[in-house]
Formats: sequence, C-alpha cells, structure tokens
Amino acid sequence: MTSGTRGMSAGSGTRSGRRPGNSGTREAILDAARIRFAAVGFDKASIRSIATAAEVDPALVHHYFGTKHQLFAAALQLPVDPQDILSGFAAVPIENLGEHIIRTVLGIWDSPVGMPAVAAFRSLLASDDPTLARTFLLEVVLKEIRPLVDSPPGTGAKRAGLAASQLAGLLVTRKILKLEPIASMAIDDLAALVGPTLQRYFTGDLDRLLPSE
Amino acid sequence: MTSGTRGMSAGSGTRSGRRPGNSGTREAILDAARIRFAAVGFDKASIRSIATAAEVDPALVHHYFGTKHQLFAAALQLPVDPQDILSGFAAVPIENLGEHIIRTVLGIWDSPVGMPAVAAFRSLLASDDPTLARTFLLEVVLKEIRPLVDSPPGTGAKRAGLAASQLAGLLVTRKILKLEPIASMAIDDLAALVGPTLQRYFTGDLDRLLPSE
Repeated sequence: MTSGTRGMSAGSGTRSGRRPGNSGTREAILDAARIRFAAVGFDKASIRSIATAAEVDPALVHHYFGTKHQLFAAALQLPVDPQDILSGFAAVPIENLGEHIIRTVLGIWDSPVGMPAVAAFRSLLASDDPTLARTFLLEVVLKEIRPLVDSPPGTGAKRAGLAASQLAGLLVTRKILKLEPIASMAIDDLAALVGPTLQRYFTGDLDRLLPSE
Repeated sequence: MTSGTRGMSAGSGTRSGRRPGNSGTREAILDAARIRFAAVGFDKASIRSIATAAEVDPALVHHYFGTKHQLFAAALQLPVDPQDILSGFAAVPIENLGEHIIRTVLGIWDSPVGMPAVAAFRSLLASDDPTLARTFLLEVVLKEIRPLVDSPPGTGAKRAGLAASQLAGLLVTRKILKLEPIASMAIDDLAALVGPTLQRYFTGDLDRLLPSE
C-alpha cells in the first residue's frame, strides 16, 4: 500500500548497491530486526531500536525496507507484504469472509510467490524458538482479523485463533506434507468445503467463546 | 494391544542389553526402517526387507520392536503405538466421532507423553523430505479413519483429509506455536468449538466431495 519502490527492493541483495557494503548492511539490519521482533514483539520493536542494534541510522532502515511491516516481511523472508493482503479483508462482507480468505490464501500459496512463503513458515515452525512466528500471527495477521469478527464483543481473539488453527493445518497438509487428496484439490472445492468452517468460527453463534458467568 | 513387553522396550536404549551391541543393533534396525518406510511406504515395507537392510534376522526385529506398527512408532520416535488409539475409534458412534477425536487427541498432546509426540511431528515437518510424515498419516492414521466416514462411498479419503487439515493446524497452533488463546483453552471448550468442524467433514452432506458427472 505504501512506499512501493522501497518495498520492491526488500529481499533482493543482487541489484547494484547505492554504496559499498550495501548487502552486508542489509543483512545486519535484518538480523537485528529478527532478534528485536522475537524479543519484544512487533508492536514494541521500534525502527530506531533495530537501527541502533544494527549500528546504522534509522533513515537507512526505512530507505532499504520501507515500513515496519515491510521490514518484518523481509525479516521473515516473506515474498509479499502481508499488510497488502490483510488490508483488503475489511472491505469483504462479513458473511463472505470465510470463503474469501480461503480463496485468497490458497491463491497465494499456489502462486509463484507461494513457495518461498511456505518455506518461510516451515522454517519458523522448525525453529527452536517459535516466538517470531507467533508474533507474526498475533500482532500482524490476527490483529487485522480480530476486530472484524469481535461480535459479541470479547470473542474476536478466539474466533480469529480458531480460524488460524484451520488455516495453519491447511498449509501444513496441502503445501508442506503434500497430503492427498488435500494437496491436489481445486481451490473452488476447498473454498466450498473449508470456507464454511472459517465462517462458523467468524460469525457462528458459538457457546464457549465467552467465559460463563 | 499386543506384545506389551516388546512395545515397552521400543525407544529405550538404556536398559541392560540381552547381548553386547544391543543398542547399536537397535539403531541399525530403526535407521533401516526409516529409510524403507520413506522409500516404499508403510504397507509395502516388510519386516524382512528392513531386517535384510539392517543385516539382522527378522526375528530380532520382532524381538526388539514387536509389530510393524510398533516398529513404525519407534522409527518416528512416537511415545505411544498409534494403533492402540486408532483401533478405539471404530467403536465410537459415528455422530460423536468429531468431538471424540478432538478430546482423545488433545488429551494425548496435553499429557506427559504429548511432548515427545509433538516434537516428533515437528521434526518430521522440518525435515527436507516429508515422506515419512505423509506415509504415517496416509497409511496408518487416515487408513483407519477413511472407512468409518466413507458415506456416500468414495468420499472417505476427502473427509478424512479435511479432518487431518483441522487437526494438524490445532497441533501447530496449540502445541508448536503456542498461539493464544488456542494454547490455553480447555479441552472441553475446544471439543465444543472444533468438534463440530470434524463432524461436518466426517458426516456432513457436502457438495464437492464426489466428482461431478
């Protein structure tokens, strides 16, 4: 959504640098970002603190990576800025959100940018410290979903978490384990079969979402 | 179910051996089993072929590990024989199967034997070759579920695969990523919230499960 040219340069270390040591500096910033995001979370990690840890000027972090969301996407080696996708969900009619998310997410996973996205998720799962993956889901992805599905008030976190449990499993079975028949099913079929699961989690009249009095 | 004392010895290399070289032989058998199960699958991998690869007598494989299912559980470093759990599902009324499986599986994951089971699944996910995890799911776990939910005939593989996608995601979010609020929710609550998802996949009147004419 923002700062297109900066976003384009994220993840590429091959273009001609604007100054010597370009790619070493980029890597130092990414390393500092990974450590900082894992230590204090996305919201509390400031560009300034990451720049200090990498021993560069904060302006250079913005120059190389754009927004904090784009820096996080680059630190996770994501091929797309998740904010670009998530910001579109708010405009979808709530009664279609389940199927829409299944179509959007499967469309990305099955596309050319999907393979590095799946590889990034897999390496986060395999990591000894899942903090970075948890931070990404809680403070970037689910943060955008929760307010959309928070009805009655106080149920949004559980609704979004349940949807994450179905989506994570679809990623694992279809793209990592390549479990048949899930791996080969058409997106249309999975949207019709799994979309209602997400929809029930988002808007279903569910007991157990609020603490009993 | 079978051969209790043999099953108990699987996974332990520390007890006093019946002969010198005991633990080296056990490891050689497990290595051969992992290679063979990954290469040809569970059904086609014979105890004889694994014994030949490990350069031991087939009787020694049975002596150390019991049944082929128990050998596979040991090769995957599972703390329990999955067959013991799976064989109980056939006796559950079909209309309760979704909630029953959620309760059973979460009960195991949250129990003392759950941690090594989760660790085993995580290392299979992280492995460069997911064949062993896929074989385990397809030829051991889902093989038992498919015939229970194959109505109308031909839908069992998709129904069981969809259920696997929800269960795998529950494992990833609750036990690997420890994503809140899923990580801390009571089993009763998750059984009530996620059980109906599995139940719909198992017995729901779903379009898209059979190829259209």
